[in-house]
Amino acid sequence: MQQVYFDNAATTPMRSEVVEAISEVMRTNYGNASSSHSFGRSAKVLVEKARKTIAGYLNCSAGEIVFTSGGTEADNLILRSAVRDLKVKHIVTSKIEHHAILHTVQALEKEYGIQVSYVNLDANGDVDYLHLETLLDTEEKTLVSLMHINNEIGNITDIKRISDLCKTYEALFHSDAVQSVGHYSLNLEDVKVDFLAASAHKFHGPKGIGFVYVRRDSGLKPSITGGEQERGLRAGTESIHNIVGMETAFKLVCDNLDTEQNYLKELKTYFIEKASVVIPDVSFNGQSGSLNQSTNTILNLRLPNSKVDASMILFQLDLKGIACSRGSACQSGSSQKSHVLSEILNSEDLQKPSLRFSFSIFNTKEEVDYVIGVLKHS
Amino acid sequence: MQQVYFDNAATTPMRSEVVEAISEVMRTNYGNASSSHSFGRSAKVLVEKARKTIAGYLNCSAGEIVFTSGGTEADNLILRSAVRDLKVKHIVTSKIEHHAILHTVQALEKEYGIQVSYVNLDANGDVDYLHLETLLDTEEKTLVSLMHINNEIGNITDIKRISDLCKTYEALFHSDAVQSVGHYSLNLEDVKVDFLAASAHKFHGPKGIGFVYVRRDSGLKPSITGGEQERGLRAGTESIHNIVGMETAFKLVCDNLDTEQNYLKELKTYFIEKASVVIPDVSFNGQSGSLNQSTNTILNLRLPNSKVDASMILFQLDLKGIACSRGSACQSGSSQKSHVLSEILNSEDLQKPSLRFSFSIFNTKEEVDYVIGVLKHS
Repeated sequence: MQQVYFDNAATTPMRSEVVEAISEVMRTNYGNASSSHSFGRSAKVLVEKARKTIAGYLNCSAGEIVFTSGGTEADNLILRSAVRDLKVKHIVTSKIEHHAILHTVQALEKEYGIQVSYVNLDANGDVDYLHLETLLDTEEKTLVSLMHINNEIGNITDIKRISDLCKTYEALFHSDAVQSVGHYSLNLEDVKVDFLAASAHKFHGPKGIGFVYVRRDSGLKPSITGGEQERGLRAGTESIHNIVGMETAFKLVCDNLDTEQNYLKELKTYFIEKASVVIPDVSFNGQSGSLNQSTNTILNLRLPNSKVDASMILFQLDLKGIACSRGSACQSGSSQKSHVLSEILNSEDLQKPSLRFSFSIFNTKEEVDYVIGVLKHS
Repeated sequence: MQQVYFDNAATTPMRSEVVEAISEVMRTNYGNASSSHSFGRSAKVLVEKARKTIAGYLNCSAGEIVFTSGGTEADNLILRSAVRDLKVKHIVTSKIEHHAILHTVQALEKEYGIQVSYVNLDANGDVDYLHLETLLDTEEKTLVSLMHINNEIGNITDIKRISDLCKTYEALFHSDAVQSVGHYSLNLEDVKVDFLAASAHKFHGPKGIGFVYVRRDSGLKPSITGGEQERGLRAGTESIHNIVGMETAFKLVCDNLDTEQNYLKELKTYFIEKASVVIPDVSFNGQSGSLNQSTNTILNLRLPNSKVDASMILFQLDLKGIACSRGSACQSGSSQKSHVLSEILNSEDLQKPSLRFSFSIFNTKEEVDYVIGVLKHS
């Protein structure tokens, strides 16, 4: 049976070059990067080279990159330390952030009694920048946490504009950029976020590794304490093979960014056109139908027939070898509606089945044809 | 030049079977274990199979195993939630614990104002169990955190005795078993710890993955929040390849435990005998010279000549291709004395150079001969 993986926003296949790089490290380089002997130094060289590579592409300094076990830990590190150590009393976020942000903000609200404000969103899920500005006009020490690219509807948020606003109002700015790092060119000299979270497995790297950008002299402190790894910001023996895997994946994706994004844009365009022809009255949630205002990798499609359930369609697609989802993988098992769509759709549209298709360079137009064909008969 | 790796307490080389297992997963199984389609289910099967395998060897249920990014995160998860969520007001630990414990306890003391008691140790670094009992005789909700095997001097603590004491006094018991899991047979039906931390890279598994045993109905809550992975106890996309690598390593080490530990005991015996003959007045720190009261993998040797510095000897050994250390890898770079030896040695002995040699099944008697020969002339 044909297998089509259209759930690349949940995770991406590793590139063969990444698998090779990881295997090579596992076979030949087994020192602990904190050890001072030659085995340790060899491991340390790999870790610091990876840090430098990644920093280079983001136009920041290597010392500002902190390796974590992934995007979720990265988000937690920032938010928890901002409240605990930087004495942030007010977090501004939105109701369509990833749960790594939302659940953490809620935990902090409960534990520390901080104030949480949710910025208004329009019907497409875009941030109301004027409302954001009113929320920033406060005496309380504030952190803004808004994602760069939404993981369900693909909306691109103007983080340059937000970072400038935050500077004006002396607020800190963290961006969960898990769906954007490795997909968009980011210049952190220009986009002056204070913190930014990324995850390797969203750009064909390994699972279990990510990083956080932490602007120098941030005052941040570790949430995982112990040894002095990561300049004291994250204790625990470094996962050398995963770090090298992430470096390899990031380098490949950055070096081929334009070509690959063009390919993805063409693929998404093709999907939109095909779907629009074959399924009359199909809609696209959020900005995902707009090629300029959403990421090339995510298309969130709403079917016109409100009598069938999305989970039933997913089940049928799965039987035909097609992998897509209703939203974040974290919620896949549950029967709950997507918290993102619940925020932006009216109750009628929310009853209609919505499906997220997300693409990578390993997908093809033939796969789109196959999927649209199956969808047509669902 | 000959290369001898005698720093296996810092980290161990991966077995070729582990490298193979990881590579296979990376190539063929890239779903997100939280996704409900076939790609996700395949990943989930691997994660749950690994959990079951590990639980089987420890004689606990699979639901009591929570995967983390390593031992340090595991320790942090336990200690932080014990204070934050279980309302522990008093932690009993010792001054020779790993920094993942000590620094975390100190952070919690500062943040939550909990009381911290350090159990007395004898000159060998062994726990004073009678003193421990007096510390447990309190009305405050107490957690004991004592490691099973010390990472610098190899002392084996009687965690069965401590778990029984804790039951009697209704205290919780966490054991950092990073140097013991994969080295000693642990039956958690018999040794009734509440929590236990382990790390794959200490038993020929990959770096960046570990687990914590959490006794059922513990009430523990996550320190990293977001998705519902690990039954809600640890958010973040599972590192499938690393989890399978850990499972493979754990299975191999458990299935061959007696044979391998006999080999290691013989190797350590050989090192002790050789060193004692060749270096008159050599001593062994803690219990590391005792074959029954210390782990087979760690020998902490104290040279009689107080005029040379340990770091200078390490430097010379390194030049000859020999990797060993002064203590925990986390402290290798610093010029500070080991906090473990500082606790148990008198000031005169503390001036003498101490070196930790730690072994794995990949070491040989020929390597011991080489090292002793080099040591003789240092």
